[in-house]
Amino acid sequence: MRRPGEPIPTAVIAPEAPDALEGALLGMRHGLIQPIFIGDRRKIEAVAAELGEDISGIEIIDMDNHSAAAARGVQLVHEDRARAIMKGHLHTDDLLSHVVKRDGGLRTRNRISHVFVMDVPGLDHLLIVTDAAINIAPDLATKADIVQNAINVALSLGIEQPKAGILSAVETVNPKIPSTLDAAALSKMAERGQITGGLVDGPLAMDNAINLQAARTKGLKSLVAGRADILVGPNIESANMMAKELTFAANAEAGGLVVGARVPIILTSRADDEKARLAACACAALYQEWRRKQ
Amino acid sequence: MRRPGEPIPTAVIAPEAPDALEGALLGMRHGLIQPIFIGDRRKIEAVAAELGEDISGIEIIDMDNHSAAAARGVQLVHEDRARAIMKGHLHTDDLLSHVVKRDGGLRTRNRISHVFVMDVPGLDHLLIVTDAAINIAPDLATKADIVQNAINVALSLGIEQPKAGILSAVETVNPKIPSTLDAAALSKMAERGQITGGLVDGPLAMDNAINLQAARTKGLKSLVAGRADILVGPNIESANMMAKELTFAANAEAGGLVVGARVPIILTSRADDEKARLAACACAALYQEWRRKQ
Repeated sequence: MRRPGEPIPTAVIAPEAPDALEGALLGMRHGLIQPIFIGDRRKIEAVAAELGEDISGIEIIDMDNHSAAAARGVQLVHEDRARAIMKGHLHTDDLLSHVVKRDGGLRTRNRISHVFVMDVPGLDHLLIVTDAAINIAPDLATKADIVQNAINVALSLGIEQPKAGILSAVETVNPKIPSTLDAAALSKMAERGQITGGLVDGPLAMDNAINLQAARTKGLKSLVAGRADILVGPNIESANMMAKELTFAANAEAGGLVVGARVPIILTSRADDEKARLAACACAALYQEWRRKQ
Repeated sequence: MRRPGEPIPTAVIAPEAPDALEGALLGMRHGLIQPIFIGDRRKIEAVAAELGEDISGIEIIDMDNHSAAAARGVQLVHEDRARAIMKGHLHTDDLLSHVVKRDGGLRTRNRISHVFVMDVPGLDHLLIVTDAAINIAPDLATKADIVQNAINVALSLGIEQPKAGILSAVETVNPKIPSTLDAAALSKMAERGQITGGLVDGPLAMDNAINLQAARTKGLKSLVAGRADILVGPNIESANMMAKELTFAANAEAGGLVVGARVPIILTSRADDEKARLAACACAALYQEWRRKQ
């Protein structure tokens, strides 16, 4: 993965719990983000004192209400004072509802979606898993945006012509399994230029998406099978289970981002370790650098 | 896992390809199954000759049509000459359509479902993943049978009070994610004795189903979380992706069975190695022994 340039100015919403505050400070110390804290000043300062952290050099915008803090974060983006948003100690929905607002939100032509950028031991390239957190049962149009968003993230990380595998339970088109039909349609959309920047192929099963030997056993003629950089799950459960299994059964490290809005949103979870938090910050910075060049 | 007793008489349907024939011979040599071959005698003998195998001691019922061979296999079960069925070189649907026939099939009160019995490196117990191959988008009633079938398999393998985790993308009930509602209902069905023999809890996310630390981080109070023996996917894609990921990313060994009919059906795949084939035969034998004692 490339190293991002300047620290990216980042609105950190409600860093009012130890893990949320530490995640932001960690990204700052590694030169990845320049945080602006938005939340309850007393709570933020109390948490900093508890952790023995000096936050006197960081701007705090005092807001004792989570929804108002999220709205202010979105406004900082419009003012070009923030080029990323980081979720602190608030519900994801409370944050995203302001991001996706028709008036004053951060919508683009694409729907928003979630990507996990994963470093999997034994795999010689990064793996992007999507959508494990936002779109529950995406229809074809939503899946097309999910795929495009993931390709954009892969491009921003320096992966040339990323290969997206559209997963199902089987690698053949089966009218009884609707996700295989969506996969065929997404493949064609990429061929027709409706999805750009990467190679798209599906349906693929999990094994023949990531394992070349399994792809060969099935006789698949595909530039994606066996070497996918991006794995697109047919629904939220399958993508989420896939990402968590890679983390817990295969010891992968995962950084989570919401993309498709005007700026990336860094979502870290309580269970994340330092490496995962830093990875999320680094990916957000690279992605936003890349977007601004388009 | 316990060792099964006597070899189980097994109708092997269409062992007309090298991998199909070898799988059956392997199970026989290890004393797990006593095969009866049903298929095109000339093809079977040609494959045996090609492999340098002597099959002169094995009964062959000559049938040059796959559907007829499957029907004959089912009939052998009714005649009590076979107590398991093994799929050879034919489409799974061609075999199962005879198994699930209302008249003359092998139906029981339960629907049929598929289980993968998995040996995962680093895990100190077997893991059963279901349903990765038969039920595409199971409704609640079907899921209840899927769970019961998996518990029965676990019991037959010697797991006392098996723990079934009902998976979704999250561990909380969320009206927007229907699989979390099914999971809550299945948990209650087990509490009420509508599913028996094991502990059932869900919704669980993948990480907190198999990893105790992840379950504790989320503060889950559950006898299943973090130590599930059985992982039930919300749909075929998620279960299939989970099983294949365990095989390819975590180097697990998997034996595949269809259960819920009068006899177990051994499904092996071309990609299976010897250990996986033997595991499937051993599980079928143990399961059928257990069933006959109920």
